[in-house]
Amino acid sequence: MISIPEAQDIVLSHTRPLGAVTVGLAGALGRVLAEEVRAPDSLPPFPASIKDGYAVVAADGVGEFPVVGESRAGHLDQLPVAPGSVAYITTGAPVPPGADAVVQVEDTEKLPDGEGSQRRVRICKAAKAGQDIRPVGSDITEGDTVLQAGERVGVAEMGILATVGAVSLKVHATPRVAVLSTGDEVVDPSTAPLGPGQIRDANRAMLLAAAAKAGAEVVDMGVARDTEGHLEGCLAAAIEQRVDVLITSGGVSMGDRDLIKPLLAREGTIHFGRVRMKPGKPLTFATLTLPQQGGRQMLVFGLPGNPVSSFVCFHLVVLPALRKMGGWAEPQLRRVAARLAVDIKLDPERPEYHRCTLQWGPPPLGSTPPPPHEASAHGAAGLGSMELWAVSTGNQISSRLLSARSANALLEIPCASGVIKAGSLVSALLIDDLGGMPVPPGGVPVTPGF
Amino acid sequence: MISIPEAQDIVLSHTRPLGAVTVGLAGALGRVLAEEVRAPDSLPPFPASIKDGYAVVAADGVGEFPVVGESRAGHLDQLPVAPGSVAYITTGAPVPPGADAVVQVEDTEKLPDGEGSQRRVRICKAAKAGQDIRPVGSDITEGDTVLQAGERVGVAEMGILATVGAVSLKVHATPRVAVLSTGDEVVDPSTAPLGPGQIRDANRAMLLAAAAKAGAEVVDMGVARDTEGHLEGCLAAAIEQRVDVLITSGGVSMGDRDLIKPLLAREGTIHFGRVRMKPGKPLTFATLTLPQQGGRQMLVFGLPGNPVSSFVCFHLVVLPALRKMGGWAEPQLRRVAARLAVDIKLDPERPEYHRCTLQWGPPPLGSTPPPPHEASAHGAAGLGSMELWAVSTGNQISSRLLSARSANALLEIPCASGVIKAGSLVSALLIDDLGGMPVPPGGVPVTPGF
Ligand SMILES: [Mg+2]
Ligand SMILES: [Mg+2]
Repeated sequence: MISIPEAQDIVLSHTRPLGAVTVGLAGALGRVLAEEVRAPDSLPPFPASIKDGYAVVAADGVGEFPVVGESRAGHLDQLPVAPGSVAYITTGAPVPPGADAVVQVEDTEKLPDGEGSQRRVRICKAAKAGQDIRPVGSDITEGDTVLQAGERVGVAEMGILATVGAVSLKVHATPRVAVLSTGDEVVDPSTAPLGPGQIRDANRAMLLAAAAKAGAEVVDMGVARDTEGHLEGCLAAAIEQRVDVLITSGGVSMGDRDLIKPLLAREGTIHFGRVRMKPGKPLTFATLTLPQQGGRQMLVFGLPGNPVSSFVCFHLVVLPALRKMGGWAEPQLRRVAARLAVDIKLDPERPEYHRCTLQWGPPPLGSTPPPPHEASAHGAAGLGSMELWAVSTGNQISSRLLSARSANALLEIPCASGVIKAGSLVSALLIDDLGGMPVPPGGVPVTPGF
Repeated sequence: MISIPEAQDIVLSHTRPLGAVTVGLAGALGRVLAEEVRAPDSLPPFPASIKDGYAVVAADGVGEFPVVGESRAGHLDQLPVAPGSVAYITTGAPVPPGADAVVQVEDTEKLPDGEGSQRRVRICKAAKAGQDIRPVGSDITEGDTVLQAGERVGVAEMGILATVGAVSLKVHATPRVAVLSTGDEVVDPSTAPLGPGQIRDANRAMLLAAAAKAGAEVVDMGVARDTEGHLEGCLAAAIEQRVDVLITSGGVSMGDRDLIKPLLAREGTIHFGRVRMKPGKPLTFATLTLPQQGGRQMLVFGLPGNPVSSFVCFHLVVLPALRKMGGWAEPQLRRVAARLAVDIKLDPERPEYHRCTLQWGPPPLGSTPPPPHEASAHGAAGLGSMELWAVSTGNQISSRLLSARSANALLEIPCASGVIKAGSLVSALLIDDLGGMPVPPGGVPVTPGF
């Protein structure tokens, strides 16, 4: 049996980034750029005031001056500023020719108008040349690469694209993903009451949501019966839909109606069909080459039917593949270390991907605090006992989907005998945004010393 | 001037969770439940096999047995299993009456058929009673609360909802958010080439994306000119659109065309108009009570025009408000500690919200490693120098939106003189998903010892 790192390598070696498509700016959020973006002009495009105040000749220093003009953002009626005069200026407005500094309004004093209603102001604080002026190109220089190919477009990047006028962009296509549940016992979630021997389909809603959250375009393929004919028809329908990826759940165990592996062996190449992991051992990965569609390749992930197994397998092997297709340069799950809140019993046969909730703060209620020598070392660093804690989601049996409730990480629990004691540092793979992680009683903790 | 924690408290004290709406299961992802969800039936609803193999009477032990029936998932042709006989069974299938354990197929051996084509099997390993059977209700008991009101629906929760047949759900409504840019100098991102004195509107695309990413329904209000009449019209249009929140950018400085504060003072109540922070000092928050709409309340955030200021202010004060409206019980930004990769100069006048990229691993290239006594303390804990590092995004001037590029956290840099040395622990507010954080050269690091 191969390990999960080996399985991940095999999957990624058979996965290629999808080609580029053109989208408008509004469609760029979350996508990965397929080309670099350059600035067609400088920012600011003119010497711009950083403050509301007066554009001055710095050498003039303090004193009383006539206000000979006004420069407001977006307006062009700029008189040149000669030595011995100033111009009113607003934030973001062009500094008029002749002026070489801005004095903020707080450092000035309005004076009564002079002869011929000439406006006048007292400059109370001498300016240095260049003060409160953003020179042309100081934020972005014309021709600069502002974003690289391969960067993901987040909130700030949306603003950067808008700033440089990048309103039409080449980004990687998002994968099309079909999700199929299998099993004669599996019925639609809307079924009530359940008939004898039936269970509701948890996997399809979950995997569709997981793929959509990863940015994929999803296709709901329903539930397949445990017959060769029906499964073949479902596979053909997924191909017909031109999906890049088919995710199935169920049908990969050792029963006489587990027909997914034989089907994939007939129609394509199975790269692995068992992985040394808990949960998820029968995880299967195959590729199909489709001569009827120009020889293109489709990936098929045969996930186990147990909902927790399919949850874990999705995150460990399918998610990195979807990210790579979508153009992520680093598609692997990110890893951090966290301190274990409770003892975890080791499994001597398989490494376990233990669902947990990471939270930052003091030791969680009911946890064993870290050994004294470590606590004091942290105390010396000003952190006290504030750190990232891994709180188990409880009973990890693979049918119990409640063990994935609120989970934001998978602990990598090595295969060994005995227990890992509470207070130990463990490795955690991030599967959800820590920006929504649980908050300890008393609110979001403040770092001591800040 | 108030502080950011004070500003956050004021904003949240004027913000209420929105009422409940009913959505189908497919629309529940990312939403917050407005009611608890209970299981209408037990899971499994019948004693279910965990393995493919044979349902046996445990007391029979090892030996050769006739196979008197088959129990396949989703099929009901179950003969009772009497002592001295077994039944074939597949994973997830009901354990037939009479049987009290399952022996996995790996621990059995097929035998030649007996008299009358009777199928026979050898049980090679004695079973304990209850072995490899999930009792009724062992995962979920009928009537259990599987999800609480106030929980956010993530990927696993979608599966849990499907499992219990919760296909119609009460969730908190998502806020409707209008975004308006202001400024006579501000033109649409599609403008090329720029006219004299013009700059492209970065804020609108960025804030629309930020609000959408936070789950809001967004309304693009365009760019307002710097006139009272146009601004009043834009505010009226936002009210007409029945938005819960209006976010403006620009027009809150001290210039004579900064008309947002006077407008909000006329039409509603300004709760604050200056905050002790860098960047973002002119940040403004107001509420409007709308008699023409049943007295409902609308929040208005007047963000500064500088793109970085509006980026920072959105995350610090608008995002928690949007989360609270959407039903988050803990809407505040989450905080972690991270080790600073480079020196940061302190500002003696205002605390700084320094944009940075958090990454986990060894000290980043070009960083100063932590002082030896701390490094060794961590080494003793088995972590080596792997930890969360805060890498500055560079020059933090508030016009330079490139300082928000790739930022996933805001460092809370206290107001003081001098520098914070590289290697110090600093407090960081999470503003993006660490699941996509930068990976150090050499790939995602493995925790030493695992
Ligand atoms: Mg099955
Ligand atoms: Mg303005």
